[in-house]
Amino acid sequence: MRKILIIGAGKSSSYLIKYLIDKSITENLKITIGDINVENATKLLEKDAQNVEVIHLDVFNSKSREEAIKRADIVVSMLPARMHTEVAKDCITFKKHMVTASYVSKEMEALDAEAKANGLIFMNEIGVDPGIDHMSAMQVIDRIRDKGGKIILFESFTGGLVAPESDNNLWNYKFTWNPRNVVVAGQGGAAKFLQENQFKYIPYHRLFRRTEFLEVEGFGRFEAYANRDSLKYQHSYGLDNTKTLYRGTMRRVGFSKAWHVFVQLGMTDDSYTIEDSANMTYRDFVNSFLPYSPTDSVELKFRHALKIDQDDIVWDKFLELDLFSATKMVELKKATPAQILQKILMDSWTLSEDDKDMIVMYHKFGYEINGEKRQIDSTMVVVGEDQTYTAMAKTVGLPVAIATLDILNKKITTPGVQIPISKEIYTPILDELKTYGIVFNEKKVPYLGYNPLNLE
Amino acid sequence: MRKILIIGAGKSSSYLIKYLIDKSITENLKITIGDINVENATKLLEKDAQNVEVIHLDVFNSKSREEAIKRADIVVSMLPARMHTEVAKDCITFKKHMVTASYVSKEMEALDAEAKANGLIFMNEIGVDPGIDHMSAMQVIDRIRDKGGKIILFESFTGGLVAPESDNNLWNYKFTWNPRNVVVAGQGGAAKFLQENQFKYIPYHRLFRRTEFLEVEGFGRFEAYANRDSLKYQHSYGLDNTKTLYRGTMRRVGFSKAWHVFVQLGMTDDSYTIEDSANMTYRDFVNSFLPYSPTDSVELKFRHALKIDQDDIVWDKFLELDLFSATKMVELKKATPAQILQKILMDSWTLSEDDKDMIVMYHKFGYEINGEKRQIDSTMVVVGEDQTYTAMAKTVGLPVAIATLDILNKKITTPGVQIPISKEIYTPILDELKTYGIVFNEKKVPYLGYNPLNLE
Repeated sequence: MRKILIIGAGKSSSYLIKYLIDKSITENLKITIGDINVENATKLLEKDAQNVEVIHLDVFNSKSREEAIKRADIVVSMLPARMHTEVAKDCITFKKHMVTASYVSKEMEALDAEAKANGLIFMNEIGVDPGIDHMSAMQVIDRIRDKGGKIILFESFTGGLVAPESDNNLWNYKFTWNPRNVVVAGQGGAAKFLQENQFKYIPYHRLFRRTEFLEVEGFGRFEAYANRDSLKYQHSYGLDNTKTLYRGTMRRVGFSKAWHVFVQLGMTDDSYTIEDSANMTYRDFVNSFLPYSPTDSVELKFRHALKIDQDDIVWDKFLELDLFSATKMVELKKATPAQILQKILMDSWTLSEDDKDMIVMYHKFGYEINGEKRQIDSTMVVVGEDQTYTAMAKTVGLPVAIATLDILNKKITTPGVQIPISKEIYTPILDELKTYGIVFNEKKVPYLGYNPLNLE
Repeated sequence: MRKILIIGAGKSSSYLIKYLIDKSITENLKITIGDINVENATKLLEKDAQNVEVIHLDVFNSKSREEAIKRADIVVSMLPARMHTEVAKDCITFKKHMVTASYVSKEMEALDAEAKANGLIFMNEIGVDPGIDHMSAMQVIDRIRDKGGKIILFESFTGGLVAPESDNNLWNYKFTWNPRNVVVAGQGGAAKFLQENQFKYIPYHRLFRRTEFLEVEGFGRFEAYANRDSLKYQHSYGLDNTKTLYRGTMRRVGFSKAWHVFVQLGMTDDSYTIEDSANMTYRDFVNSFLPYSPTDSVELKFRHALKIDQDDIVWDKFLELDLFSATKMVELKKATPAQILQKILMDSWTLSEDDKDMIVMYHKFGYEINGEKRQIDSTMVVVGEDQTYTAMAKTVGLPVAIATLDILNKKITTPGVQIPISKEIYTPILDELKTYGIVFNEKKVPYLGYNPLNLE
């Protein structure tokens, strides 16, 4: 039997484990799930699940980690990104392939030569974003190029959102993933992108006021704000001469304008702690970002500081969050503004038991062929089944699982630290994802770009 | 003769050196000026200056540094703050007193026990801000306390500005000090202060929109924005129970509103470099923070993004800087936005040969005595003589020089790493500063605080 070790059985491992167990008989697989919490990991298994065992594995205990890795043929690390390094080093030592859904860290990148020397495949960024975005984009880009086309525009957007049937708040948003990442999203430096060969920069505090709209058939309108570095994959995608490059995060229309208010006030700051935060009400928290007044209400100071008119519908969004409550307590000790805001949002944005999530992806490919400018828009929507089999777990876990099996079956053979941007990798994986309902809908649209009249 | 070593003879050393040379005969002083640039240091001396020598001193060359320190009785370091540490360690080794105008760093603070054990005085923060602000504030605070008063409000503001007779641009501002510090002022975290026992926080990107006005008799109106940490000296000033604490930086009215535009666009960011900055025009630079358009002008995009009406007088401030010039080149390679903005501003805000600078300070002391609430406002204005004998050099250099002599003359005797907040220190220094025209003008005003009606 071929032995697969999965380290870390968190929220996003449900589909990954199910896929591999379902294939375990036909593919002759033995699956070991190593987690620090055996009970939680066991919950992800059906009662009569075969060919699978759950073991206690503390990734910081090198002996138990090495023991487990030694016994495997391939290792899947679903740990937080910073914890991959020790696992990866063991995989070099014991000559095992490795798969992760995380961004390639410097530490991971540094193992490339050793991985190649040992004929090992270290596949990374093979979840949804990064992952499915790479594969689905490169498939279209390669196809256009194979026909002699030249890519002049590439824009790519992804959003982890709540499914339409569970979308019942004014923000059209719930936490379907790590809430902390949502609260601090966009921080750490200016966003950078290319429009018609001009480099553009947006500071964090303006990020949520420079959005663009996107229409997805059957799902309505979305908006997107720029990711920090839209140029990250310019070279690896072969887009060095592409005039427009933009990567963004999708939300429902109106989210960003309201979120901008939190940014403006300083409520998303994670770099300092608020005095006596535990004993504050939500109202006190809001008031600490507004000028002192013995008479004016927090509400009026808030409206005045943010120039929110009396009839602006954005206002109801804040009321819905109970942001001005004089009774709800922050309770968190020595908390940063971001931590307090996260708590307030979690009151309102936590998924209910039967809520479903949704992953949306949108690519735009502008290209020139035979002197003509054309554009393809490609969209994908995946809706979750329930709170275990979420769209997030599906779109992260299935590409990881399929890649793992493809490596074992030698469909993927190129060694080294890599991301899924070559035909060898994306063709079989995207094909198989289709059978699970992860499908891209392509449409030819008129090419407009940002300079439709071709003015100089 | 008593030997004084001055390390670093930059812009702010002119008065310091003149003062000590003038006193050298009556006080029996031998002054050695050590600088990496002997020529520049020599320029600060009058032709027939006596009892003074200039030596080449590279502070990073430990041998020449130690040699010079060994020969002195007291060492004045006018180096940038980060360079004091090595000098201070040598002063411990060779048992010399030390004086600096810089903030007490962690490294300096760490030498306190050793300084005390050796009976050494390490006097810091004895320039203007920090320096004269400490002394002048503590003198009034101590006087109020000695009469049985209780401080309920303390606000303190300082500004380094251009003198009224040289104030001839629309910003009412020129660089009278390190331009870089002006461009990045306020960065690095939220501003924090206390108003009526409420902690208030302002994020950097809102700092220049939350100003307050100050009136200085004979000099008109100023505005002030909050310093990063208004609570820094709360404990050392003995203001633990004070309800309102605010420290700010003064500008002429209207400066902050216009500066806010640079902050909004992201032009003050010093954390990343702009692509191909050397070959940009000023106009290209501005455009890189605005959305792409093949037709709309940079001017209109700028007005639209910042909501600047057609008749808003702030507009002329930007025109005056030639911010939209399509011919002036940035020229700086791999420059950050802050570096480029600094260059643009230096075109317009560099002092002309006969321009004079000005230092303004404003303190508000609110206190309770015999059940009554009262307030004292105290202001100081110093105007420079020329470009060598600036107000900045005077207000930084004279307190340093006087403290140095007071230590030699044993008027100041308490050892340790310290700042000038005790009577022993500030009384003789403030008295002597008066004879040089550095005078505070005190006025009793009605106490208003932030809650004049005493509402709960």
